[in-house]
Amino acid sequence: MAEHRVYFAGHPQPVVVSTGTLISEAARLAGLDILQPCGGQGRCGRCAVLILAGTVRRRSTLRLSAEDVAQGFALACQTVVEGDCRVEIPPQEKVERRLTTDRTVAEVTPPVGYNFDLDQTIHRVHLTLPPPSMDDQTDDLSRLLTALRQQAGFTSVTVPLPMLRKMGGVLREGDWEVTAILDVRERFEGKLLEEWLIDLLPGHKPQDDPLWGAAIDIGTTTVTVWLVNLLNGEVVAQASEYNGQIARGEDVISRIVYASKDNGGEELRHLVLTTINDLLKTVCERYNRRKEEWQPPVTPQEIVKATVAGNSTMIHLFLGIPASSIRLSPFVTAVNHVPLLSGEESGLAIHPLGVVDCLPGVASYVGADITAGVYACGMDDTTRLTLFMDVGTNGEIVLGSSDWLVTCACSAGPAFEGAGVYCGMRATRGAIEEVWINGETYEPTYRVIGGGKPRGICGSGLISLLAEMFMTGVIDKGGNLNTSLPTPRIRQGEQGLEYVVAWAEETQTGKDITITHVDIDNLLRAKGAIYAGYNVLADSVGVPLEMIEQMIIGGSFGKYINVEKAIQIGLLPDIPWERFQFLGNTSVRGAYYALLDHHARERIKEIASRMTYIELSADNSFYEAFMSALFLPHTDLERFPSVAQALRSKAPVD
Amino acid sequence: MAEHRVYFAGHPQPVVVSTGTLISEAARLAGLDILQPCGGQGRCGRCAVLILAGTVRRRSTLRLSAEDVAQGFALACQTVVEGDCRVEIPPQEKVERRLTTDRTVAEVTPPVGYNFDLDQTIHRVHLTLPPPSMDDQTDDLSRLLTALRQQAGFTSVTVPLPMLRKMGGVLREGDWEVTAILDVRERFEGKLLEEWLIDLLPGHKPQDDPLWGAAIDIGTTTVTVWLVNLLNGEVVAQASEYNGQIARGEDVISRIVYASKDNGGEELRHLVLTTINDLLKTVCERYNRRKEEWQPPVTPQEIVKATVAGNSTMIHLFLGIPASSIRLSPFVTAVNHVPLLSGEESGLAIHPLGVVDCLPGVASYVGADITAGVYACGMDDTTRLTLFMDVGTNGEIVLGSSDWLVTCACSAGPAFEGAGVYCGMRATRGAIEEVWINGETYEPTYRVIGGGKPRGICGSGLISLLAEMFMTGVIDKGGNLNTSLPTPRIRQGEQGLEYVVAWAEETQTGKDITITHVDIDNLLRAKGAIYAGYNVLADSVGVPLEMIEQMIIGGSFGKYINVEKAIQIGLLPDIPWERFQFLGNTSVRGAYYALLDHHARERIKEIASRMTYIELSADNSFYEAFMSALFLPHTDLERFPSVAQALRSKAPVD
Repeated sequence: MAEHRVYFAGHPQPVVVSTGTLISEAARLAGLDILQPCGGQGRCGRCAVLILAGTVRRRSTLRLSAEDVAQGFALACQTVVEGDCRVEIPPQEKVERRLTTDRTVAEVTPPVGYNFDLDQTIHRVHLTLPPPSMDDQTDDLSRLLTALRQQAGFTSVTVPLPMLRKMGGVLREGDWEVTAILDVRERFEGKLLEEWLIDLLPGHKPQDDPLWGAAIDIGTTTVTVWLVNLLNGEVVAQASEYNGQIARGEDVISRIVYASKDNGGEELRHLVLTTINDLLKTVCERYNRRKEEWQPPVTPQEIVKATVAGNSTMIHLFLGIPASSIRLSPFVTAVNHVPLLSGEESGLAIHPLGVVDCLPGVASYVGADITAGVYACGMDDTTRLTLFMDVGTNGEIVLGSSDWLVTCACSAGPAFEGAGVYCGMRATRGAIEEVWINGETYEPTYRVIGGGKPRGICGSGLISLLAEMFMTGVIDKGGNLNTSLPTPRIRQGEQGLEYVVAWAEETQTGKDITITHVDIDNLLRAKGAIYAGYNVLADSVGVPLEMIEQMIIGGSFGKYINVEKAIQIGLLPDIPWERFQFLGNTSVRGAYYALLDHHARERIKEIASRMTYIELSADNSFYEAFMSALFLPHTDLERFPSVAQALRSKAPVD
Repeated sequence: MAEHRVYFAGHPQPVVVSTGTLISEAARLAGLDILQPCGGQGRCGRCAVLILAGTVRRRSTLRLSAEDVAQGFALACQTVVEGDCRVEIPPQEKVERRLTTDRTVAEVTPPVGYNFDLDQTIHRVHLTLPPPSMDDQTDDLSRLLTALRQQAGFTSVTVPLPMLRKMGGVLREGDWEVTAILDVRERFEGKLLEEWLIDLLPGHKPQDDPLWGAAIDIGTTTVTVWLVNLLNGEVVAQASEYNGQIARGEDVISRIVYASKDNGGEELRHLVLTTINDLLKTVCERYNRRKEEWQPPVTPQEIVKATVAGNSTMIHLFLGIPASSIRLSPFVTAVNHVPLLSGEESGLAIHPLGVVDCLPGVASYVGADITAGVYACGMDDTTRLTLFMDVGTNGEIVLGSSDWLVTCACSAGPAFEGAGVYCGMRATRGAIEEVWINGETYEPTYRVIGGGKPRGICGSGLISLLAEMFMTGVIDKGGNLNTSLPTPRIRQGEQGLEYVVAWAEETQTGKDITITHVDIDNLLRAKGAIYAGYNVLADSVGVPLEMIEQMIIGGSFGKYINVEKAIQIGLLPDIPWERFQFLGNTSVRGAYYALLDHHARERIKEIASRMTYIELSADNSFYEAFMSALFLPHTDLERFPSVAQALRSKAPVD
C-alpha cells in the first residue's frame, strides 16, 4: 500500500501514513489533538480540518455544507489520505464559528430605502405662531391648531388633555416657536386620517435630533426590546430578559389559569410591565453609555412610539384583558386587532402620550408574534413555497407564499424550552447546549453555555442529546433506552430508566444530570406535535413537504438549533440544509419593521386577515399524523432519507 | 271733610276716618299692626294690602307691578281713603311671596318635544350575537363590532381599553345578548361621526330603565349639580355646595395666583373635584330616597354623560390646565373649546368611560357659563333686544338678539358676593338679605336669611342697604355718609365713617354690624363697573339702553336681587320692572339643555363663535363710563327717571 506524507500547518515535519489512513489518525501520529466528541462517527463536525493541498477522500460530509467542502473543509474522522497532503487544524472556535455560519442570525439593518418622511407615522414639525395681543385674543389651542393646519397641513388633530395642560407654558417658553410631535393614523378602516399630538416642545428642535421608538416582543419565556432611532431606522440597543410572569406558570395555559384567579390578571400584567419597563431602561442606558458625548442621552419617557408583538395570550395579559376564552373551546380571543393605545393606557413607561401599537393576531394560538414573523421573513412576498416555524413555548407553523398562507399552532408545550424535563433548564449560563455521544463507548461529550460545569440541559441540548442517543443506539426508534448496552450510564433511576449525561462530580449542582424515560416521551410528544402540524398544513393545501423551497425558523430557541440533529429526531422535515434559514427573533423583527414603516404595518394587518387558521384540535387528520410522528425520526423512515442514509453509514464503509 | 268707613277683613267693626287718611293710619286706629320697615315712605312694599272694594287713591305704586295694582294691591303707607272701603291685610309671608313673584325662578322642565332617540347623543342598543364555535372562531371584538354595524348601524365604533377588558365576560354572562351604551359624536368639525362605547351590559336591559346624566355648573363660589334622566329629560335631583376652592381665594384672580404656586393647580383641581364628586353623591342619594321602591337606585358611576359649564378660569382649574395667561395681558385662555373627555380623564366620579363635555367659552372672562346662559335664556333666538347679565363673582354682560351678540366682562369683584366688604358674607343663614331704613328716624329694619340674629350682610342685603341709605339721605349721591343726621348710627368707627345696621346685642357675633365708607366705595366701584359695561356694549352697537326690551338676570345671586333697589343704586338700568326676568342659575340650565339635546349643544357652540367680545381694559370709553357710574345712581340722573321720581316723591304730596 502506498505511503504518503501528511504535513500539518505549523509543523515542519510530515507524518508518513499509508493510503486510507484517517486524517484524525495522522494527526494523532503527529502528536496533535483533534477533538472527536462523537467518537469519530462523522456526526458532530467538530473535527473539521482544512485541506490546503493534496489528495484526500471524504467518506462523509454529513456535517459540512457544499460551500464548506468547496473551501476545503473535511471531517478528520471521515476523511482518508490518498496522496501527499497539507492540512490545517483550525482553532476550535474557528471550527465552531464556521460550522454555525448558516445559523448566524441576519444582522438588523433598516429596511432598504427607509424614508422617515414618507414611511413613518410619527411626524415632527416646526411651528411659528403669531403671539396673542389685545387685538387677537384667540385661545392658545385655536392658535396652535391653526398653525398645525396652515404650516403642516394637519387638519384633524387630537390634542389630549395632558397636552392642553402643557401647551400654554411651552408656547410661551418657546416664545411662540414650538416643535410638535404627532402620530398620523388612519381611523375607522381608513375613513379618516387623524393626527394625534404626542408632544409639544419649546423652540425649534434640530431636525437631526433622534426620535425614539421601541420594538417589543413579549415572549412567554423571554421579552425583547429594541431601541430604535425612528429618523434613520437604526437599532441602537437591544436587550432581553425573562418574562417576569414565568414564576406564575411556564406556558400560556398555566398563565391563563393563573390570570383567572383573584387579581391574578392584574398581577401578571404588572409582572410583564415591570419586565418591559426595566428593559426599556436597560436599552436607554446601553445607548447612553455607547453614544457620542455630544449626543443627547435618552430616557424611556422620550420613546414616542412602541410596537408590541407577542402571542395572543401574552398580548391579552399585557393589556389586562381576560384570556380565559383562549383556553376553553371554541378557543377564541377577546381581541385580535387591538386599537392604538397611549403609553399611559398601556402601562408602558414610554412617553405617556406616545403610541402603543399592538400588532394583530389571527387566532388564540396564532398571534401577533406570527404575523410579525411572517412579515419579517418575507414569506408573504415570495413565490417560493415557504414553511415558517416559530419555536417557542408553543410551535406555530405557517406554510405558504405570496399566494396563500395557512397556519396552525401545535401545543408542543415547553419541553424544548427546558421545562417539563427533569434536568431541563432555559438556554442560559450552565446549560448543556450540545451533546455528542461516542458510538462505541456511549460516553457523552457536551458543550456548556458560558463554559464551566453544567447545571442542566436546555432545548438545543435536548434535541442534540435525543439525536445522539438515537443515532448511537442508546435509544431505539420508539425512544426506549437500550439496557443491554455495556455502559453504566443507562440505569434504573428514581424516575425509571435514564441515561446519565454528566456525573455528579462534573456538575455545578453535585448531582447527576440525566435524561429519563419520561423526559424522552415528553420530547417525542413535543416534536411529534410539531411534525404533525407540518403534515396537516401541507395536506390541507395538497403540497408534499419535500416541495418546501425554504424553511425559516424563528424564535430565540431556533437560533441555536442544530439542523442535522433536529432532522434526526424528526423535529424538522428532511430537506437539504441550505433551504433552512434562521432569523432568530422574527417577532421583534416584525415589530421593528412595523415600528418604522406604516406600509409594513399595513401588510402585517393584511397578513393577519388573509392567513387561514387551521384549528388542529378540530382536525381529524392531526391525531393520526401525531401518532405517526411519535417515533424517531418517524414511523415512515422514507420521509427522512438523510437520516436513513446516516443510519446506514454508521459503520465506516471503505 | 267727608268721613268714610273702612272695613278690615275679619273685623266686623269699621273705623271711621276722614278723606285723605292713609290706610296705614286707619289700620292703626283699628288696632291692627301693619309692618312699615321703610318708615312709611312707600319704598319697601311690605305694607301692601288688598283693596277688596271701595275708593282709595294710590299716591305711589313704586313697589307694585301693574299686575299687582290690577289685582287690588296698594301700599298702606301710600294710599289714602277717598270713600268707604273694604281692605284685607294679607299675612306677611303672602305679601312677600306676592312681591317676589316676578323674581321666582322658572321651573325646570324638559325642553319641549325632547326626543331621546333623535336629540340625545347617548344611545342604548340591544344586540344579539351569534356565539362562537369551532367553525367560527372570530374574536369577541370583531363579533361585537359586526353586531353594532349590522344591528345598530354604528360603523365607526371606538372601544376603549377598559371595555376590551370587560367585553368577553359580559358577552358570556349575557349568553351573547348584550346592551351597549354609546355616545355618538362628531369628530374634527363634523368630518366623522364616531361612536364611543361607554358600556356593555349582559342581557337586554329594559328600554325604560333610566340612563343618567349630570348637568354641572362650576361657579367661583357655588357649584351646582343636576341629576337628569336622559330618557325623558327629567331633573330628578339638584344640589349645590360652595366650591371647595374658596378657602384658596375668593375670586378668580386669587385662584389663578394660587394655582401658579407649586402644586397649587393640582390642589385646586382636587378641591373642586371633591366638591363636584360629593355633589354627585348627594344628588344620587336624594333621588334614591325619593324614588319608588321598584325603581333601581343610582350611583354616580352610572352617570354616562356630564356637561360642565363655568367661567373660563373654573373650567381651566377643573381640568388642571394652567390659567395664568387669563390673568396677564393680553388675557388669553389656554382653551375655549375643550375636546370631549372621559369620566376618568376628567377626574369626575361618573362612569369612567362616560362623556364629559365642557361647554365652550368665548374669552378669558366670558366663559362657558355665559354661552350656556345665553342659550338658556333664549336671547340668541329672539328678535327682542336683550341684555343678559350673569351676576356672580364677576359680572358678565351680553347684549343682542338673534342677529348679533356682543359681550364683555366687568371685573366687578366679589363685593356683591359679600367679599371685600367688612361685614359682608355669602347669602347663607344669618345673612341680612334685605334692609329698610325709616326715612325719619334712620332706624333700619332687616330680614335675615333663615330668621334669627344676623351675622353679616350678603349681596342682596348690601344692594338693599345702599339703596335705602341713598333714598333716605344717610349717604349722598357720592356715597358719603351724612354726619349731620340726628342718629347715633352714623359714627366714626375704626375703619372711618360707618353706619350701624345692627347693634351688638342684636347680632349672633355680639359685635355691631356696620357698613363702612370703604365698603360703600367698593360697592360703588363694583356697580359702576357693571353699569359701565352696559354702556360700552350699548355704545359699541349704537343702541340706547332704554331700548332694551328684556333684561335677563342669571346667577344664583340674581335670584334674590331687589330690582327696585338695584335700579336705585344704578346697578341695573332704569327700565320698566316687567322687562326684568330672573332665571336663577342660567349656567347649569344651559348645561342641562346641552346635556339633553345635541342641537342645543351645537347652538351653544355657535353662540360662542358668533359672540363679539369687547375687552373693556382695551376700550377707551370704558374708563369714562366707569367714572360717571361711580355715583348713585349715576352722574346723569336723567338716565334713571324712576329714581329721580322716587327722590322727588319722598315728601308726601297731597
